[in-house]
Amino acid sequence: MTPVLVEAWRGDAVESEHFGSLAIVDADAGVRAAIGDIDRPVFPRSAVKALQALPLVESDAADRLKLTDDELAIACASHNGEPVHVRTAAGMLEKAGVDAGVLECGAHWPYDDGASRELAARGALPTALNNNCSGKHAGFVCLACALMGWTDSGIDLRRFVKGYVRPEHAVMREVSEALHSTTGFDLSRAPRGTDGCSIPTYGIPLRHLAHAFARFGTGIGLRAGQARAAQRLRRAVAASPYMVGGAARMDTLVMQRLGERVFCKVGAEGMYCAALPHRGLGVAIKMRDGNNARAAEVVMAAVIEALVTLDDDERDFIGAFSDVTLKNWNGIEVGALRATPALRQALLQASAG
Amino acid sequence: MTPVLVEAWRGDAVESEHFGSLAIVDADAGVRAAIGDIDRPVFPRSAVKALQALPLVESDAADRLKLTDDELAIACASHNGEPVHVRTAAGMLEKAGVDAGVLECGAHWPYDDGASRELAARGALPTALNNNCSGKHAGFVCLACALMGWTDSGIDLRRFVKGYVRPEHAVMREVSEALHSTTGFDLSRAPRGTDGCSIPTYGIPLRHLAHAFARFGTGIGLRAGQARAAQRLRRAVAASPYMVGGAARMDTLVMQRLGERVFCKVGAEGMYCAALPHRGLGVAIKMRDGNNARAAEVVMAAVIEALVTLDDDERDFIGAFSDVTLKNWNGIEVGALRATPALRQALLQASAG
Repeated sequence: MTPVLVEAWRGDAVESEHFGSLAIVDADAGVRAAIGDIDRPVFPRSAVKALQALPLVESDAADRLKLTDDELAIACASHNGEPVHVRTAAGMLEKAGVDAGVLECGAHWPYDDGASRELAARGALPTALNNNCSGKHAGFVCLACALMGWTDSGIDLRRFVKGYVRPEHAVMREVSEALHSTTGFDLSRAPRGTDGCSIPTYGIPLRHLAHAFARFGTGIGLRAGQARAAQRLRRAVAASPYMVGGAARMDTLVMQRLGERVFCKVGAEGMYCAALPHRGLGVAIKMRDGNNARAAEVVMAAVIEALVTLDDDERDFIGAFSDVTLKNWNGIEVGALRATPALRQALLQASAG
Repeated sequence: MTPVLVEAWRGDAVESEHFGSLAIVDADAGVRAAIGDIDRPVFPRSAVKALQALPLVESDAADRLKLTDDELAIACASHNGEPVHVRTAAGMLEKAGVDAGVLECGAHWPYDDGASRELAARGALPTALNNNCSGKHAGFVCLACALMGWTDSGIDLRRFVKGYVRPEHAVMREVSEALHSTTGFDLSRAPRGTDGCSIPTYGIPLRHLAHAFARFGTGIGLRAGQARAAQRLRRAVAASPYMVGGAARMDTLVMQRLGERVFCKVGAEGMYCAALPHRGLGVAIKMRDGNNARAAEVVMAAVIEALVTLDDDERDFIGAFSDVTLKNWNGIEVGALRATPALRQALLQASAG
């Protein structure tokens, strides 16, 4: 049975409870903490975008297209679709010689309400560039330039990338290889689904996901080119954390504050993964109800509190994510989201281990 | 242990699971179905707005102010904040001789994205009338007219209603009395919290909530004036279901289709209550994770399928809520939300019982 990791309090009572599983693993696959079933495959969704971006850098695409930190960071992002995100993703496509017409992620209104209202106020509709995955997909298109052998012709690229979201396409085969080689999990026997942005998502156990992020954070166990790519992506995201999410997004706020000490990335349906490079650890969280990010964020914050060296101000900063004050429409404090004592205890043991 | 009632499927695997509790009770307090712990108090949130609206009708407020079906329905609503909802709530306040300045529910952007974008496109900001609870609060203000003895002076009413969201205010005492008398649960020993719109919410067991809705649907066990008020509210909502929710809202869609056979009302944090008057039953659902409405909606749809007499078309209509096709941004089918066999089996037994 997966235990309750997060409680939602209202007034003097627990109103709702979130069950979940958690793996904290080192680069040698040693398990530092295991809560719930860490061997059941789960769809990691967007929590593994950084692993999926490795081929972009391990190939010569990032170098040859002179991708900036902003551009590498947005390749790992589930961004808010704010104007700065739209411009950055569009700029990557421009470097590749194509436009947003090649994107196969679909369009949706920006995650950020302010950005949505700003679009609506201009009488505009969202495009694929507003899709939270547009940076990842722009990265896939840049990778395609390398895979097709740099013919320097936008027309050929458009033909080459067509259907890039399909598992059998050269681009997606590279992306899946990166997932396979970092997690060490055989994707051919994994459950498979289609992600929100139409690429495949593979069921991978938390144990393997956490191991992959320990490798991503340390380079240990990766081939040399992949280790360099991981370091470059981590540094890019630490330098441009706004690109990974945006306004009021936990990934952005945490990495703006803690820099390279934490690489963290949320995913749909209660997923959250992180690398803690200074501790040599990877983290993978799946909330069983999967409903939205609120509970996974509390668990990730509790993990960071327990395992990352923080000063007092940083501890207060992260504590506001693991013990969240809930306010109502009048700004009155009505409750809290809190990491449970059981979770705190397990993390204390992991920290001491 | 509360069982899994709803599974979220993606591709060929279960991605997420929702635990929950359910009570189905008749007007004599006979339990027809009990899943999970139905004696643990839960905050019913907005699922009991219809019970909280009883004093508005049992007093002479609804008659004397000539409240329409639209207005009585919106008094029971968690509406989308669309223009028609705003106008209707404003009209109730006008009948009471005051304006939206008296509302103490706070302001938020409309639940309906289209309505939010339309506001933004006009360069406007949301007001308390856009709050999903504005109709309920307008009903409280109308009730205050009766409680203060109809002085026919807006100025006195403004003074009288001030602080109406506080538990000790005359208005809220009437509202709490309605909850107490319909549920039969002693609120003085209940957990207490503050709701999103700032009124108190009391922890009440599902057994008592379901019993209250059996009474609400049949009038059995209510005092005469309350039984008449319940009937009038049910008919008003059946006549004006758009007022209870709005575009794409399950409560609205179900009651538009099934009329007086179902009175159902969603609440925050995974709550859902219903009266099935033709079966003499009340229903109360609490999803343990409480994250949003998706799982509670599936459970309620499965309850309606099992317990309400439906023709084939109606069965298909409701089936689309208990076995929901999930599509991604490209409109590709990626998974489903489904009532579990365990839930279906329990409901089959309840139906036969």
